[in-house]
Amino acid sequence: MELIDGNKIASDIIAELKAEVAQFTGRRPCIALVRVGEDPASISYVKKKEKTAAEIGLESRVILPPVTTTQTELFALLDNLNADPTVDGILVQSPLPKQIDELAVFRRVSPEKDVDGFNTLNLGKVAQEDESGFVACTPAGIMELLRRSSVDLKGKHVVVLGRSLIVGKPIALLAVQKKNGANATVTICHSGTTNLPEITRSADVLIAAIGRAEFVTADMVKPGAVVIDVGINRVADATKKNGYRLTGDVHFPSVSQIASKITPVPGGVGPMTVALLMKNTVKAYKASAR
Amino acid sequence: MELIDGNKIASDIIAELKAEVAQFTGRRPCIALVRVGEDPASISYVKKKEKTAAEIGLESRVILPPVTTTQTELFALLDNLNADPTVDGILVQSPLPKQIDELAVFRRVSPEKDVDGFNTLNLGKVAQEDESGFVACTPAGIMELLRRSSVDLKGKHVVVLGRSLIVGKPIALLAVQKKNGANATVTICHSGTTNLPEITRSADVLIAAIGRAEFVTADMVKPGAVVIDVGINRVADATKKNGYRLTGDVHFPSVSQIASKITPVPGGVGPMTVALLMKNTVKAYKASAR
Repeated sequence: MELIDGNKIASDIIAELKAEVAQFTGRRPCIALVRVGEDPASISYVKKKEKTAAEIGLESRVILPPVTTTQTELFALLDNLNADPTVDGILVQSPLPKQIDELAVFRRVSPEKDVDGFNTLNLGKVAQEDESGFVACTPAGIMELLRRSSVDLKGKHVVVLGRSLIVGKPIALLAVQKKNGANATVTICHSGTTNLPEITRSADVLIAAIGRAEFVTADMVKPGAVVIDVGINRVADATKKNGYRLTGDVHFPSVSQIASKITPVPGGVGPMTVALLMKNTVKAYKASAR
Repeated sequence: MELIDGNKIASDIIAELKAEVAQFTGRRPCIALVRVGEDPASISYVKKKEKTAAEIGLESRVILPPVTTTQTELFALLDNLNADPTVDGILVQSPLPKQIDELAVFRRVSPEKDVDGFNTLNLGKVAQEDESGFVACTPAGIMELLRRSSVDLKGKHVVVLGRSLIVGKPIALLAVQKKNGANATVTICHSGTTNLPEITRSADVLIAAIGRAEFVTADMVKPGAVVIDVGINRVADATKKNGYRLTGDVHFPSVSQIASKITPVPGGVGPMTVALLMKNTVKAYKASAR
């Protein structure tokens, strides 16, 4: 079994971006990080993104509207960022407070600055195999993990567990593209799937993004399969200082015994998401007039 | 075996639309049909669309630019139609002459008038399960065929053969939606799939859209499966006056022996596509200011 080290691969990408950004003359690429309210997980995610941006040499602009912000106010803020020629990428950290329609917010971000890849137009471009847009960071990160771990999807059966807009559907659309590294046969499973273990056992590459702690057990995995664990679940654990531990959607102790390659949680897909956000920001910068 | 009669179901939809349109006061819904050049198949398709529009009580405006039309000229024509408040839907008949970038043309049609459902934004909305957009007519027609033939996809394994932008990908995205009638487990296969017969044999519902005459044979189908044949292929046939016959992607004589329900070619999916184009046009009319 080979561990796919997301921290290592992400830091390779970060180093590559740093070298690329060092060549840029004039202003530096800039990402706006919008965090509404004080959700503890969001605070830590945005801090990580800010730190990674600084490491690469990107400018970041952190904007912290209060939790009481209305949708109209948030739209006005995004319109300003959309119009600002010194801002290349805009990230709105989710989850958003309940008075705000998350999908509408994602659509308000200009497609040219949508480094999160959640805008409808960018999702459509993934379906159209058009590389001019932005691919959502988690699925883009998974494709990079596979590529840099020498997993060629060509002719393979990829089973995606979960049909979310942010992971399941875009990774399915990426894996089925008629492109080098992709070209897989793809099955999308979900909570409504019957005979789930039978289907997951037919996977050469299993991507778990169902949001249920340790849901995928060894009996659901074909020996020798590549297993990508997208889940980040908090499980109560009295032995931990903060009262919980993080687990993925895969039962790592058993599945790692039979998988050929597997991502750990944490340290697998997670760090890739941040690295790809930065890569998208540099792409937006290069595509802009500057 | 039950034959799924696309002609019958399409004419039901056309009758429903006719009754609905009869209630409209003021101007009638209008579809612009743009046919570039004199491709014989295109002439016949556009004629059929014009005739169906008239039957329902829709206005149609047929525009026939010459085969030498440049992309710039076609864009200008589309921009005029986009801006014309008396035009609700715009269809650009494909194939287009080779000096014209088809995808760029589909994107030029305003999303609000994109009754063909080929605009990137409308494809993205299908992925987002947002019903405010337009679903491409062939996949939308397949969903209607299934619904009106009492085939509920819930918990079923749908195998889609073909990954085209116009059929394969959107029908996969529709079938997997968390909605009544959908909610299937979906596999997308294509020319690069290994063990194809094994995968197609696991299908409860098999949708063939690969563009190869009589490709799906009985050994590739599970007894009792529902088979939807999207292919329209011309096969040389000396016994026919015009020298060819039409066949689908399914070998009908053998597969119809084991399928529980099956669409014929012609008379299956084909007529549905035209009916759904009209349905989309009425939808565009209702969404517009009129």
